[in-house]
Amino acid sequence: MNSQKKTLKRTIGTICSHSAAQIFHGAKKEGFKTLGLITEERLPFYSSLERGSPEEFLVVENWKEILTEKIQEKLLEKRTILIPHGSFVAYLGANNVLDMDVPLLGNKRSLKWEADRKKERKWLKKAGINVPKEVKAPEKIQEACLVKFPGAKGGEDYFLAHSPKEFREKIGERTEYTIQEYIQGNRYYPHYFYSRIKKRLEILGMDRRDEANVDESFRFPTEKKTFVVVGNTPLVARESLLPKFYKLGENLVEASRELFNGLSGPFCIETVVKDNLEVVAFEISGRIVAGTNLYPKGSPYSVYYFDKPVSTGRRIAMEVKEAIEKNRLNEVIS
Amino acid sequence: MNSQKKTLKRTIGTICSHSAAQIFHGAKKEGFKTLGLITEERLPFYSSLERGSPEEFLVVENWKEILTEKIQEKLLEKRTILIPHGSFVAYLGANNVLDMDVPLLGNKRSLKWEADRKKERKWLKKAGINVPKEVKAPEKIQEACLVKFPGAKGGEDYFLAHSPKEFREKIGERTEYTIQEYIQGNRYYPHYFYSRIKKRLEILGMDRRDEANVDESFRFPTEKKTFVVVGNTPLVARESLLPKFYKLGENLVEASRELFNGLSGPFCIETVVKDNLEVVAFEISGRIVAGTNLYPKGSPYSVYYFDKPVSTGRRIAMEVKEAIEKNRLNEVIS
Amino acid sequence: MNSQKKTLKRTIGTICSHSAAQIFHGAKKEGFKTLGLITEERLPFYSSLERGSPEEFLVVENWKEILTEKIQEKLLEKRTILIPHGSFVAYLGANNVLDMDVPLLGNKRSLKWEADRKKERKWLKKAGINVPKEVKAPEKIQEACLVKFPGAKGGEDYFLAHSPKEFREKIGERTEYTIQEYIQGNRYYPHYFYSRIKKRLEILGMDRRDEANVDESFRFPTEKKTFVVVGNTPLVARESLLPKFYKLGENLVEASRELFNGLSGPFCIETVVKDNLEVVAFEISGRIVAGTNLYPKGSPYSVYYFDKPVSTGRRIAMEVKEAIEKNRLNEVIS
Repeated sequence: MNSQKKTLKRTIGTICSHSAAQIFHGAKKEGFKTLGLITEERLPFYSSLERGSPEEFLVVENWKEILTEKIQEKLLEKRTILIPHGSFVAYLGANNVLDMDVPLLGNKRSLKWEADRKKERKWLKKAGINVPKEVKAPEKIQEACLVKFPGAKGGEDYFLAHSPKEFREKIGERTEYTIQEYIQGNRYYPHYFYSRIKKRLEILGMDRRDEANVDESFRFPTEKKTFVVVGNTPLVARESLLPKFYKLGENLVEASRELFNGLSGPFCIETVVKDNLEVVAFEISGRIVAGTNLYPKGSPYSVYYFDKPVSTGRRIAMEVKEAIEKNRLNEVIS
Repeated sequence: MNSQKKTLKRTIGTICSHSAAQIFHGAKKEGFKTLGLITEERLPFYSSLERGSPEEFLVVENWKEILTEKIQEKLLEKRTILIPHGSFVAYLGANNVLDMDVPLLGNKRSLKWEADRKKERKWLKKAGINVPKEVKAPEKIQEACLVKFPGAKGGEDYFLAHSPKEFREKIGERTEYTIQEYIQGNRYYPHYFYSRIKKRLEILGMDRRDEANVDESFRFPTEKKTFVVVGNTPLVARESLLPKFYKLGENLVEASRELFNGLSGPFCIETVVKDNLEVVAFEISGRIVAGTNLYPKGSPYSVYYFDKPVSTGRRIAMEVKEAIEKNRLNEVIS
Repeated sequence: MNSQKKTLKRTIGTICSHSAAQIFHGAKKEGFKTLGLITEERLPFYSSLERGSPEEFLVVENWKEILTEKIQEKLLEKRTILIPHGSFVAYLGANNVLDMDVPLLGNKRSLKWEADRKKERKWLKKAGINVPKEVKAPEKIQEACLVKFPGAKGGEDYFLAHSPKEFREKIGERTEYTIQEYIQGNRYYPHYFYSRIKKRLEILGMDRRDEANVDESFRFPTEKKTFVVVGNTPLVARESLLPKFYKLGENLVEASRELFNGLSGPFCIETVVKDNLEVVAFEISGRIVAGTNLYPKGSPYSVYYFDKPVSTGRRIAMEVKEAIEKNRLNEVIS
């Protein structure tokens, strides 16, 4: 059986959110069947996307329905490979995702390591990547520190404290918080792809998140700054930073091998570049990030690897295809 | 006569400003003759654009000359379809544009509805789209309100007031103003195209306006914030917002059918996305917007509709061409 | 000998930094051999770039080694044309670059004129381009003035003064400074290319620099604003500004002919656009700028000149190639 036929027997699927249009678009370009898990009210938009819509929709009433036997069996029947993205984990829960029988792109365990703050920190440290220092207790605050709160809406109340006194004045009634060194600088989020098939790390793009309301807060006085991601803006880093970013990526891949059998596929390191050109990482995403949506036709970086327009979504499909052709699919899914 | 010949008998023309290079570029790609209305001092730049210049320039001494019989007859003789853009209306006046015999792309009446603040508000409300609340009198100010002044330079003095007292302190001698709820959030301007031929609404791109000096006002202390559009920056919205944006567009098209025989072609809804992911609209542009100039080779969204690079300028030409081929031109011009 | 053969006898080389990937990518597209001057630690990144890496690396221990006879002879032997970029001058020193026997793209003397603040100002004035007014002495400060300090880290302490009194309060112990009119507005950096072969000025792109920490300084209170370039963001200017930008470029080329035998190839004018749409220039780059890295596949402007994806790096290679074919290479190198 030739490779094209083998590819055509697999379906690439995901939840219609986050970076789904890009994933479907890329999968279709590479000749895969595509399947979208969707709720009713999103159908008009996704249906309209001639080239960014899946060939088949599975309509669910709520996202958790995806975990039912009925849907899971349909996915297995169509030999679906699911592409996990940010909403994927948020909608289904990391543990539920890990328990599914339907294969997922990449190493599932990276989802667990990115979702748990302590694991994430361990991973970054193992890779020798600079992270903001943690301050164990309010009395130890000696320089500008960022005080963070847990939970999805936690971003709303983040504040800066420069001393124990300032901390006590601002903390109010709250008892759950983390205090860390405040890193002043500019945000750069490089999009990586680690190909196990090619044994090659690629920088496929870069973005900055657009957060409401903080990123437009300078236009008018703001009551309270909030940090809810509403979109992404494109940028490139000064070229002398790229070897540094590349090294960070390589180190993270290397560390993942020691910690959990290794990364595979797309990931991102959320960093701040300081004015002394030092790079400090504050987060890892162990899967495709939404910033890649800026580049469905390829980015200012992907052009240095491929002559055709390659998004991260398409890169995923290319990797799966090559893995199938070489009978190495088990290395790129889990 | 075959369709290609029919297309070639039509000329696509516009004023050399705003988004003209994109319009000419797109029209040439689709095989149309092109004509640019221009003033002398702009010739060096537009002439230099091998693929963004029209085949023929009509040089005028001032923009109003376009309304003279001489120019109008030339345009009719060449069977010109004029593409209205922002400068078009600004240079000629909305009523003069409406009175021309030379056909315009789209439904002329959308220019009238977008230009009149009250009509625009009625249109948005009919579409069920959230708009900032209006405050009828200064004494009714209870939360952050934006106080605006009429006229082109009005943007310069916009101020925020949180109470009647603050309003009185800041208003000075001015007696003409509007007061509206201040919406804190980030600006997202989706570029729509409604194809009457395909009966399909498309999101072809997205941008944010770059306003001098407010959008660089954080770099150094600013004497007074001003809001003059000097350019555009690209961005994408988080994907879960796209079904919402799509619905807004559909509702606006539907409302336009009830109010004035319907939109046709490009339009834009200027919105603010709040940190609770609510979308509030504060303006409509019933024609091509300058933000589309970011995407002459297509945008991160157009790629989901077309396999070739399609700008809004080219999309216009594609629609006109298809309409001619199907003998339905009267549906897309007016 | 046919032209393709002649082209193939030349090598395009540069230092692996700044805009090198783009330069190599473009040169390879046009059929040139390519050579990268590099230090060990940058090899992993540049080697990984299938299409953005040079065919050959010359590894040096430090950048100054490039000036040794050994390296210079290798470059001459391979008939290398070196492409000067920002790091090029910064790493080697402007005078050393001017003394090399290896030919450089463009007119070397533009590097001298851009590097010397007084020459640069003379050049801009000769071209009739608006520049910020200089204030000769602190007592003459009458409006918002920017006080600048010399040296690479000078940006860190820039401050605004509105009066002699404010100046005295802020200047501290420092005795070396320049005072200039502060221009409030938004930064626009058009990327020009002047082709001596085609006798045509092109606007190939536009960007804004992303400076740490000032350009993210609004997110949290900043101890001190700093102005270190860490990347670039894309934008387009409102189209009615383009004829102005084009004129600035033409005037600068014309003035360069009178001052030093003329510009050739890529250059940039760093400008601020004020809210009255006046354009004020504060710097010239007489060579490729890093902002062009946003557009390795072409920009929203290059599309109006070329039907294929043309970056500034590729445009350079196209110019050299055409010059070789027409036996006019001496006009585009020096």
